[in-house]
This record gives sequence, C-alpha cells and structure tokens, in this order.
Amino acid sequence: MGTKKLGTQTVALAHPPSIMGHGNVVGKKEGEGPLKETFDYIDKDDTFGQSSWEKAEAQMQKQALTCALDKAGQTVSGLDFLFAGDLLNQCISSSYAARGQEVSFFGLYGACSTMGEGLALAAMTLDGGFGRWTAAVASSHFCSAERQYRNPLEYGSQRTPTAQWTVTGSGAVVLGKDGPGPYITHCTIGRIVDKGITDANNMGAAMTPAAVETLKTHFQDTGRSPGYYDLIVTGDLGVLGSELLVELLGQEGYDIGGNHTDCGKLIFDLEGQDVHCGGSGCGCSASVLTGYLLDGMKQGRWNNILFCPTGALHSPTATMQGESIPGICHAVAISRER
Amino acid sequence: MGTKKLGTQTVALAHPPSIMGHGNVVGKKEGEGPLKETFDYIDKDDTFGQSSWEKAEAQMQKQALTCALDKAGQTVSGLDFLFAGDLLNQCISSSYAARGQEVSFFGLYGACSTMGEGLALAAMTLDGGFGRWTAAVASSHFCSAERQYRNPLEYGSQRTPTAQWTVTGSGAVVLGKDGPGPYITHCTIGRIVDKGITDANNMGAAMTPAAVETLKTHFQDTGRSPGYYDLIVTGDLGVLGSELLVELLGQEGYDIGGNHTDCGKLIFDLEGQDVHCGGSGCGCSASVLTGYLLDGMKQGRWNNILFCPTGALHSPTATMQGESIPGICHAVAISRER
Repeated sequence: MGTKKLGTQTVALAHPPSIMGHGNVVGKKEGEGPLKETFDYIDKDDTFGQSSWEKAEAQMQKQALTCALDKAGQTVSGLDFLFAGDLLNQCISSSYAARGQEVSFFGLYGACSTMGEGLALAAMTLDGGFGRWTAAVASSHFCSAERQYRNPLEYGSQRTPTAQWTVTGSGAVVLGKDGPGPYITHCTIGRIVDKGITDANNMGAAMTPAAVETLKTHFQDTGRSPGYYDLIVTGDLGVLGSELLVELLGQEGYDIGGNHTDCGKLIFDLEGQDVHCGGSGCGCSASVLTGYLLDGMKQGRWNNILFCPTGALHSPTATMQGESIPGICHAVAISRER
Repeated sequence: MGTKKLGTQTVALAHPPSIMGHGNVVGKKEGEGPLKETFDYIDKDDTFGQSSWEKAEAQMQKQALTCALDKAGQTVSGLDFLFAGDLLNQCISSSYAARGQEVSFFGLYGACSTMGEGLALAAMTLDGGFGRWTAAVASSHFCSAERQYRNPLEYGSQRTPTAQWTVTGSGAVVLGKDGPGPYITHCTIGRIVDKGITDANNMGAAMTPAAVETLKTHFQDTGRSPGYYDLIVTGDLGVLGSELLVELLGQEGYDIGGNHTDCGKLIFDLEGQDVHCGGSGCGCSASVLTGYLLDGMKQGRWNNILFCPTGALHSPTATMQGESIPGICHAVAISRER
C-alpha cells in the first residue's frame, strides 16, 4: 500500500468516511446567542442536573454523544473507537463521561483544537480499515474552566479587552465507513508553534501563528487555493486573532478575507453579550461544527468547508513559570462530495 | 478493504510496523534500581539541567525521543506523526517538548496507559497507509507529579503502604513501516472501567479491573491463551494490583501466574528502595519497555510480549468531589516475527 500522505503534513483519505450523526448541547448564554437555533439542547442553568461544574461537563459529553448516535441510528457499543478530550486537568470530563460505556477509548489533549484532532483520528482509523464506526467528542464549561485556569467565579475578576469567553458546550460527531456524507476528505495535522506570546488573556494572538502555518501547509500540500472552500472556519481565534490571521496569510500570498470566519466570533453576539473578543474552549468549535456548520452543509448552503480548530497548549503552571504559549491548529476538509 | 478488527476491541495489523529505535532517560533513584543497565541516560539530580521540575520533564521527553531517533537513524522532521502524553495538567511536558519541532503532533491523555495508547495509534496510522515513520513518547517526573497530585515535597508527607512511587522517566519508540522488527502485531484498545475504588493512594486496586477486562478481551478476540506470550507485562499495577490481577484472571479461567510481571515491580528494588508497592507514572512503563523489555527481545530472551500499561483517569478535583477512580488498560502485542 502506498502512503496517503500529501506533502509534509496532510493525509488524503482514500475512502473518505461519512459524517453519520452530529449532536451538541450548550449552556444558557450560548442558547441566547445568534446560533441558538442550531443547538440540540440548551440547559437552563448550566448545571445539567449535576452537583459540580466538572460533573456537569461530563454529563454534557454524554448527552452530546448520545444525541449524535441517535441521529446516526447507532449505539455506543456499535462504535469501534471513541476519541474524546476536554480542557480540565487530567481530562476528567471525557473519562467520566465514557466511564462504564462499552467502547474502546482514546483520550486526547489538544486544548481547543481537540475536535480537529479527534475528527482526524476518527477518520484515519476508519480509512485505515480498523472498523466501521467511530466518534469524536469534545467539551468545555465556562465555570469549570474559569476556576481552573483563572480565578474562582465568586471573585468577580475583571476581564481584559483581549479576553475570550469559554463556551459551555459539547459537540459530538459520529463517522461511518460508508454513508451519504458529508465526507472527511483531508486532514492537515498541525505542528506546535510558539511565537513568544506570554499573555494568557490573549489566546487569539498566541494561537494565530499555528493557524497560519497549518493553513499555508494545507494549501501547499493539497494544491488548493483558499477559494476552493466555501468557508474556512478557524476554531476560536476570536476577533483579534481572526484579523491577525487574515493579515498574516495575506502576507504569505493567501487571501482568505472573503471566506474566513471563526467559531469564536460566530457563537456569541459580540456587541450584545459582553464577551470581548468572542468565544473559546474545546466546546466552542465542537458545538459550532455540530450545529451551524454541518446543518448548513446538509441544507446545501456550503459544499466545501475547511474546519480548523486551534489550541493553546499552555497551563497555569507554565504561565507562572514565565513560559510563552505554544499553539496548534489542525485542518479538516469536509465536503458534500466524496 | 475489509476491517482489521478482531472481536470487539482488538485490531490485527495487516502489515505490522517495525520498532526501529527506542530510547529512555530516568532520574537518580531509577538509575540506582535493578534496571539501571537498561537506561540510556541517568540524570544525577533529576533536574535535567532545568530550572523547574515541569521544565525538566519536557527536557526528558526531548532527550528520550532524540535518543530513539538516533538509534533509528532518523530525525524528528522525518516523522510523519508524533504521539505524546504525560500526567501534568494540560499535558505541558509533551507540548513544550514538541514545541517548535517540525513534526505533526497528536497530544494524548491516557494517564499511565499513555505509552500503550501512543504505540497503538503510531502503529495503526502506519498500517493505515498514512506515512512511513511515527513515534510515541511518554513521561512522568516524581517531583512534578507529587506536587500536582498530592502535596508539595517540602511537606515531607508520610506515604501509605499501598502507595506507589511515581517514576522519573521518559521513554520513546520510533516505528517504521518496514524493518527488522520487533513488530507490533495486535492492539487491544481498552474501555474505561470503574469498580468504585476511591482511595487515591491505592492506584493498583483502582486500575486492576481495567487490566482484567482488557486481557480477557485480548485472549478472546485473538484466540490466544496466556501461554502464547513469553511475558505479559502490565503497566504499573504494583505489588498489590499484580496479585489481584493474577487472582481475578484466574477466576475467569486465565492463568497468567507463570508469565506475568509488572513494570512497577521491575523498576525498583522493592525491598531496598522504600517505594512501598512499586513504581507508577507514564514514565514507568515507557522506560521499562524502551530498555529492559525491548533490549531483551532484541537479545532473543523473549519472542512474544504482551505490553499492557494501565492508567488511572481521575484527578485531584474528581477525588475531592468524592468520585471513584476510573481505570483503563491497552494491550499491545509485540513479536520478533511478523
């Protein structure tokens, strides 16, 4: 068998897997935003019926996966593998959500890029011949993230203008070896890029260089131009990071100004919801993909999307030790045609 | 293409990838233990020349991978993918080790099972046709783990008799699509099992049920009996967990008493090094595999090994919220013959 590798970082799936089901759940604030019609479940108080924010987040992953499986007409024990990740220390949302479930489990850590990492591996294992059904799920919760990464909510700390708002949301995608699509056709797996940004309240700037590198590589590896895609959607660069991305890619000769958008900009009303630079968190790109984007593809609004979630791979400990923030971005090409 | 899946959880690689290089680094205590001759580098004070324990751990991963690549005659930019994980919050050892390196990066979280998870994915992506070279690396550091999971070292807290000692170590394996072996032939991907153990100082007991399930499934899926393997090596169940494993598998009709051992028991002198139930941490199974086990296979001491690292997927937050400890175990069959 020859290699399915294009160029340095991109795999071209020989038999592109089909997205068979997608589901999501979000919190109250997300459910009041511009994408409210695209969510399968909106919780009224962000607890999801649980006694802690961490338990709520595990519950969110369970519900999102169940919803995606229902739409696919599949059960969790019918999955060959589940790929899951989140932002919490030791990825407990994912592990506790999958605890006791009859499914082979791969735990991932890719920060807010997790949905891209999971989708890529879920697609590659199917295309590699290792099964017929896989799924990827990712989540974040504003309240579990804030107290872990920043300050307890009770402090009421002021947020800086460059800050983004961690999305309370989870999204799941179920893939099948064959089906009506949309299909995952290419995955460009990112490298870890660090341009020396040390401000943990400016994630957009920290992650943008990784997005620039991955997008440039994707275009080079595939021979595609930005115009091939109806939509190029980054994970959660937010307002500031998105501006930087368009500018930096423009300097490299790639004009994405006309068809770029960002999950962090889409999920909230940037004027009315007081979120500063937009949304962030694993659940941001995961819930936008599994609602607005995939619904839109099925409705024929877009034929080709390049989904590019970005992650900031630091930790509070690393920041306190004076480290800069490494970023990563994976690009997953999704098409209505095989 | 047909599926390479055997039974419910096992993949049989059609063209088993070859282990082309393996390397490891450990700390002072590990370098004074019974496996001292099998380590490539032993640090004299566990700092690895760095200013913090977390930075030391990132440095360890870098060194272990470089060592494995050197032995394989390969460079990091020659790798199609790197799979890496560790125990620290947000897996910073892995991210900071791979920062700026020219390699597509998949971050994993599997706690102490990480080397099994990484090896499986590294082998599956090669067998799936997605490249020619991959690598898996994992690490843990006694000092970074203790202050994160338990207490600052300066407190001098007493350890319970069931406790294990987090290994300061990192191991890396470089796989090639073709080569002289040993080969990775089968991978049984574990499910998350939780039998209600809540004592975070008794990891062996918490992880053993997952090892029982994965081993039983491996034997059922492959049709192999325990005697097929010269050695069945669990990750870090330690003394207590190992006893439990042999007993529980015996009750299921699988006698592994004659050929079972455990990385947590092998790495330290259980009488002389005051480690209570033995070693633990991602670096435990990773450094035992990449020294003692793979060296032994190359020397012809063993032809078939079943490498089964186990992970406890809890966090201090989950424990403080009263949660029990979910475990996972992946089994990777390594053979001198293809």
